[in-house]
Amino acid sequence: MKVIILGGDGYLGWPTAMHLSAKGHEVCVVDNYLRRDLCRKYDVQPLFQVPNLHERIRIWKELTGHEITLRIGDCCQYDFLSNIVKDCVPDAIVHYAEQPSAPFSMMSHEAAFLTVNNNLQSTLNIAWAVREYAPNAHIVKLGTMGEYGTPNIDIEEGWLEVEHKGRKDTFLFPRQASSLYHTTKIQDTDLLWFYVRMWGLRVTDLMQGPVYGLETNETKLDTRLSTIFNYDELFGTVVNRFVVQAIAGYPLTVYGKGGQIRGYLNLRDTIACVELALLNAPAKGELNIFNQVTETFSVNQLADMVAKIGNERGHAVEVQSVENPRMEKEEHYYNPTYSGLKELGLHPHYLTEKVLHNMFSIVEQYKEAISPHKIFKGVKW
Amino acid sequence: MKVIILGGDGYLGWPTAMHLSAKGHEVCVVDNYLRRDLCRKYDVQPLFQVPNLHERIRIWKELTGHEITLRIGDCCQYDFLSNIVKDCVPDAIVHYAEQPSAPFSMMSHEAAFLTVNNNLQSTLNIAWAVREYAPNAHIVKLGTMGEYGTPNIDIEEGWLEVEHKGRKDTFLFPRQASSLYHTTKIQDTDLLWFYVRMWGLRVTDLMQGPVYGLETNETKLDTRLSTIFNYDELFGTVVNRFVVQAIAGYPLTVYGKGGQIRGYLNLRDTIACVELALLNAPAKGELNIFNQVTETFSVNQLADMVAKIGNERGHAVEVQSVENPRMEKEEHYYNPTYSGLKELGLHPHYLTEKVLHNMFSIVEQYKEAISPHKIFKGVKW
Repeated sequence: MKVIILGGDGYLGWPTAMHLSAKGHEVCVVDNYLRRDLCRKYDVQPLFQVPNLHERIRIWKELTGHEITLRIGDCCQYDFLSNIVKDCVPDAIVHYAEQPSAPFSMMSHEAAFLTVNNNLQSTLNIAWAVREYAPNAHIVKLGTMGEYGTPNIDIEEGWLEVEHKGRKDTFLFPRQASSLYHTTKIQDTDLLWFYVRMWGLRVTDLMQGPVYGLETNETKLDTRLSTIFNYDELFGTVVNRFVVQAIAGYPLTVYGKGGQIRGYLNLRDTIACVELALLNAPAKGELNIFNQVTETFSVNQLADMVAKIGNERGHAVEVQSVENPRMEKEEHYYNPTYSGLKELGLHPHYLTEKVLHNMFSIVEQYKEAISPHKIFKGVKW
Repeated sequence: MKVIILGGDGYLGWPTAMHLSAKGHEVCVVDNYLRRDLCRKYDVQPLFQVPNLHERIRIWKELTGHEITLRIGDCCQYDFLSNIVKDCVPDAIVHYAEQPSAPFSMMSHEAAFLTVNNNLQSTLNIAWAVREYAPNAHIVKLGTMGEYGTPNIDIEEGWLEVEHKGRKDTFLFPRQASSLYHTTKIQDTDLLWFYVRMWGLRVTDLMQGPVYGLETNETKLDTRLSTIFNYDELFGTVVNRFVVQAIAGYPLTVYGKGGQIRGYLNLRDTIACVELALLNAPAKGELNIFNQVTETFSVNQLADMVAKIGNERGHAVEVQSVENPRMEKEEHYYNPTYSGLKELGLHPHYLTEKVLHNMFSIVEQYKEAISPHKIFKGVKW
C-alpha cells in the first residue's frame, strides 16, 4: 500500500512510519518540523535529541533496507501538499499534521490562531488534494476522545441514533470539548464529514485518548530511531510526564480532585490501530469512526500507579493535588464504548506494572537531562 | 448602547447599522470591502452601485444628524480588530464579517481556503478581543438554518435534549450542512460555544434563513442609502434573484424537483431580529440561539409566487427545472421551530403579493442594468 504520513516527524508519526515501512508498505513522510520549532521557541525540548528526518530515514534504511521517502514542507501550503498527492497517488494518507497540544492552544491569541489555522488549513488541503489527485485514497485522520468531552450519557463510537418526537435520525455523536485544540479536532471532523458526503471521500476518524510509552518494535532497533518524547505540560502526555516527574523528584501534579476519567492507550496500540484502520478502509462516501482507547483511568489512579512503581524503584514519589489550571469537571460520568478496533483485531497492550517499569527503566537513563523548570509553564484556562 | 457592526458594508450589515443608529445607538461600522472585491473579481457586480462607507455615512449624517463611526480593515488581523474593541469598549458586537456565499465556497480550493480562513479567523479574533478588552460585551453572531441541514427529526431552536440508555443530556442541535460556507458557520459556533463555556462570554447565535428584499425604513430615505443587492448565483439570495430573472426574461431556475424547503425572512425582519437579540442579551457564560425565519417555502412555491406577480406586471415569466448543480435532497422532511424571536416581540413581514410587487417595482427601475450573463457562473457540487 502507498501511504503518505503527514506529520511523520512527531511522537506518533515517526513510529507509525517505521511500523508501516517494516510491514512492507511504501511510505512517504511529510513534515515541516512545526513541533520541533515550537518546542525550541517555548523552551520545552524533549527528554533527548532525535536526529532529523533525513537522518532517521538513512538510519532506518541502513538497519532494515526499507526505503522511506521524505518531503519537508507545510501541509497548509496547498501547492506543496497537492503536488505530493499528485506525484504519489497514495492509497492512503495518515493525517497527523496538526498542532496537538491542548495547553498550547490556550496559551495566547498567537497560539490559538496558529492552532486554528494549522489544523483546519491542513485538513482542508488534504480533502481538496485527494479529490483532485487521488479520489480513491483513504484519509485516516487522528481525532481525539476529548472531542466528546464528558457527557452525561454513554459515549458511542462516533454516531448517535436520536429519537425525537416520534421520528428518528442518526447524527455524529455530540461533541463538546474543553480546549481549543480539541475544538479544532471537532472542526476538522466537520470539514471531512462534509466532504465525505459531498464528494464521496473515504475517511476514518480515530478518536484517540492520551497516548503513553516510548517503545515500539522498531524504536528498539537503535536509540537513534527513538520517538520524540516530551515531558512538559505543553507537549508531554500525562503518563509520560508523571514518569519523568517521579524520576526527577517533582511531585506528581493532580489537577483538583483528580477524578477526571479519560481513556488511554499505549504507543504500540496507536500504530496498530492506524494499521488496522488502513487495512479496513471504508467505501467511498463513508466515514468510519473508532474510539481508539484500550482502558480508562482517573488521574488519581494514574498518579497512584506511577507513584507505586516509582517508589518500588527507589524514587521518593509524592502525589500533590494542585489547583486545577483548567476549566473542566473534576467528577463526572464517563462511559465510552471502544469495541470497534478490537473487533478488527487489536490486541491491547494495557498499562501494567511491567509496562510502567519498562518506561521508568528507559527514562531513568536520561535522569540527568531532565530540566524540572520545563515541566510547567503555568498555562491556565 | 455602543454597538460595533463587523461587516457593516454588506447586504445586512448596512441596513442594520442605519436601523440601530436611527434608534439612537452609538454605532461603529467595520468592513474591509471583501464582498465588493469578490464581486469585482468574479464579475458579479450588484444591480446598482452604492457609495462607499465613508460616503454612505456622510449622507446618513446629512439626512438624519446621526453619527456612525467607521474603521476600514480586516477582522482577520487581530491587532486591527482588538484595537477597535479596546478603543470602543462596546456593549455589543454584531458579527457579519463572514464570507456569506455557499456557491462561492464550493467554486475552487482558493475560494474554500478564503472562506475557512476568513470566517474562522474573524470569529476567533472576536472572541479573544472581547475577552481581553470588553469581557461583558454581547456577541451577536449570524448563523444560518443551513447548519442544521435537513434532518429527519423536528429542528429545535439550537438545542436538543437527548435521552440515551436511560440517561439524559442536552447538546447543540445536530448540525450537518450542505455547503462549505454553512460548514464554516457550524465551526464558528463550535468556537464561540467553546469560549462561552471557558471564559463566560455572552453570545447570541441567530440561525437565519435566506433573506429577501431591499427596502427598510432607512434605505427609503435616499436611494444612495440602498443596500448592496446582488442577483447572481454567488451572492444573490434566491427570492431576490428570481425577481431579477423574471424581469430580465430569464427563466426562473428551479434546481431539480424543487422540493427543497427552507425558512425565509424579509430584510426588515433581519434587522428587527438583530435589534431584539441586542436588547435581550444572555447572561455571562450563556449562548442564546434563535431560529431566525418567519415562514417556510419550497423552491417550487417561491418560483410560482414570483412568476405569478411577474406575469401580473407584464413580464413573460417562465419557470424551468434545471439539473440540480448541488448535492442536496430535493424532497425531505422539514419542520423547524422558530418561536423564540416572536416571543421577544418580532412582528414578521411575510412574503405577501404586496411585498413581491414592491420588490418588482424597485428592481424594474434597473431593468436595463441587468446583465443576464452574471446570473449563473456554473458552480456545481
